[in-house]
Amino acid sequence: MLKKQKKSVALSGVEAGNTRLCSVGNSGNDLHYRGYDILDIAEKCEFEEIAHLLIYKKLPTQKELDCYKEKLIRQRGLSKNTLTILEQLPASSHPMSVLQTATSALGCMVLEKKISNDVEELSNSLLANLGTALIYWYHFSHFNKRICLESDSDSVAGHFLNLLHDNKCNDQWIHAMQTSLNLYAEHEFNASTFSSRVIAGTGADYHSCISGAIGALRGPKHGGANEIAHKIQTRYENPDEAEFDIKKRLSLKEIIIGFGHPVYTLSDPRNQIIKRIAENLSISQKNMKMFNIASRIEKVMWEEKKMFPNLDWFSAVSYDLMNIPTFLFTPIFAIARTSGWTAHIMEQQHDGKIIRPSANYTGPAPKKFTPITKRT
Amino acid sequence: MLKKQKKSVALSGVEAGNTRLCSVGNSGNDLHYRGYDILDIAEKCEFEEIAHLLIYKKLPTQKELDCYKEKLIRQRGLSKNTLTILEQLPASSHPMSVLQTATSALGCMVLEKKISNDVEELSNSLLANLGTALIYWYHFSHFNKRICLESDSDSVAGHFLNLLHDNKCNDQWIHAMQTSLNLYAEHEFNASTFSSRVIAGTGADYHSCISGAIGALRGPKHGGANEIAHKIQTRYENPDEAEFDIKKRLSLKEIIIGFGHPVYTLSDPRNQIIKRIAENLSISQKNMKMFNIASRIEKVMWEEKKMFPNLDWFSAVSYDLMNIPTFLFTPIFAIARTSGWTAHIMEQQHDGKIIRPSANYTGPAPKKFTPITKRT
Repeated sequence: MLKKQKKSVALSGVEAGNTRLCSVGNSGNDLHYRGYDILDIAEKCEFEEIAHLLIYKKLPTQKELDCYKEKLIRQRGLSKNTLTILEQLPASSHPMSVLQTATSALGCMVLEKKISNDVEELSNSLLANLGTALIYWYHFSHFNKRICLESDSDSVAGHFLNLLHDNKCNDQWIHAMQTSLNLYAEHEFNASTFSSRVIAGTGADYHSCISGAIGALRGPKHGGANEIAHKIQTRYENPDEAEFDIKKRLSLKEIIIGFGHPVYTLSDPRNQIIKRIAENLSISQKNMKMFNIASRIEKVMWEEKKMFPNLDWFSAVSYDLMNIPTFLFTPIFAIARTSGWTAHIMEQQHDGKIIRPSANYTGPAPKKFTPITKRT
Repeated sequence: MLKKQKKSVALSGVEAGNTRLCSVGNSGNDLHYRGYDILDIAEKCEFEEIAHLLIYKKLPTQKELDCYKEKLIRQRGLSKNTLTILEQLPASSHPMSVLQTATSALGCMVLEKKISNDVEELSNSLLANLGTALIYWYHFSHFNKRICLESDSDSVAGHFLNLLHDNKCNDQWIHAMQTSLNLYAEHEFNASTFSSRVIAGTGADYHSCISGAIGALRGPKHGGANEIAHKIQTRYENPDEAEFDIKKRLSLKEIIIGFGHPVYTLSDPRNQIIKRIAENLSISQKNMKMFNIASRIEKVMWEEKKMFPNLDWFSAVSYDLMNIPTFLFTPIFAIARTSGWTAHIMEQQHDGKIIRPSANYTGPAPKKFTPITKRT
């Protein structure tokens, strides 16, 4: 199964550039952000610490973190024009297309708003507002409600949850969201990050790079997987039913989304963290149903296929327990990954290379042209 | 000079996939679309014939062409929501960001409009409307004018020129625009096309792929070059002044945009065609100034550096003669290339591969984590 997945990856193992940001799967199951082991940092840092590590190249001191968070809070707020744009997008929109439209539109407004062209500054504005734009659109298009854009949370994670639920969320949820954002923040040359670097390589502006990356992340073979994982888990009423059905599907060679990874060979190191988060949320809410179903499928997949869950699997359980609508799962991934994309865009800009591979031509040999009047 | 350019290209010569669409530079200076030599087809076909060749895999018969053009005409028209969105984008927007915003927004509306998910159908809608969206925004943001979205032209080229100039344009201009669109329509795995394929590889939707490609094309090292070429040409009053200044700049190792190409080694085959178009427009309008300046710089660049002009160089002259504002040059390239992007997206979807290269890690070795309270 794993091998099959690898075969269907183009450029697999081909180095497309240098990065100082992230190393992945060197020992089969490790992930480091700028040298720090994900197991050390994911639960102990706020998302803003990780974003600072990726974008500003170091873990901040308390003073630097306070200053960074203050900057992000000051950047919060969407113009009347942006809100009008969001109000035109129908409820049937894919939320990733909404996020992409908002990003491109904010890119249109950069000059008018006299935002500095500095990528750090531009990323502050996006990290501060992507979630707000999404949730504003969600409430307006689905419930015809114009939400207040302010919250008293000082973090990206808390602001998102508070706006979504129109309520101050508890610390456990905010910590769970912080951890989840940290886990999704960065992952080397995955397809969306690579898109952002291909776009940055042409000298394009920051917002164009992020828009492209959002587009790539949307795909079901990439960020869209956490939503599919959730759909699988909610198919079942209990673990026994899940086990029976998954075994049947495996016998029919169905691929179960949320398992395996093109880079990790032994396990996804992020799984143990997000699984613990999902378990703690389940215990606190006295609702073990989804966790138990997900855990049983994990067991079956290992026993039957030697396949391990990736980050998406228990992320789906965690988000569900925080009452996040399924179709906002991938956008949350996008908000988190904006920190990693930003750092990669900066690297690619500094590197100065355009990325331009070749193609293997498999088409027809040169042909004689026939003018339209003589074509049949 | 050429060699230097090649060094700064990542993945240069690395095959990232198969294509039946296009072969480029096999003999150093040839370009074929599905086996047809660009020299045979560029001036003899309407843009819709070329788009049909790329997307529907064959040059159409007259009946098929009529049918295809009829489809594109029927798809013309932007919803009130889309127009409202365009009206929110300030005059200071980069037109490529406007095009990207419009594309993402149209992607949001696909389900509501019950447009089939068929890439061919989706591409008809974009090819029919990208130019309209751009020109609507241009007239509204710059002149506070809401233009009529209809024209009596039956072609993408004619519709664009008529809306832009609020006037029926002559046949020579329409033929010049057709030829220019044909030349810009397709070019193998260039950076924007490659972006669209990386995005398509994740299983993302059509509009996400096109949005990302538009972002990549915007960069000055890619589509943005035709605008820079125009800026260079308009710096001078006459050919002698141009020759003197360009020689001085070359002696200071300045790179002159509009010359050289990462794939062609002998010449850009498209140059002879667009140069003829530019010359004919100049003669008809009894205005040889830009053409003579551009030709002299071509001569100087060859004599001094053995560098040849690429498609962008005389495209800039041609567009200028058709009174197209400079900042719409790259968007025209985008409209043309939407045909090639679409065909590549279809190939990538059919291929089914995610594109996921590796990175060469150059960052720090594993580091010990220090909690924030102990960081200095």
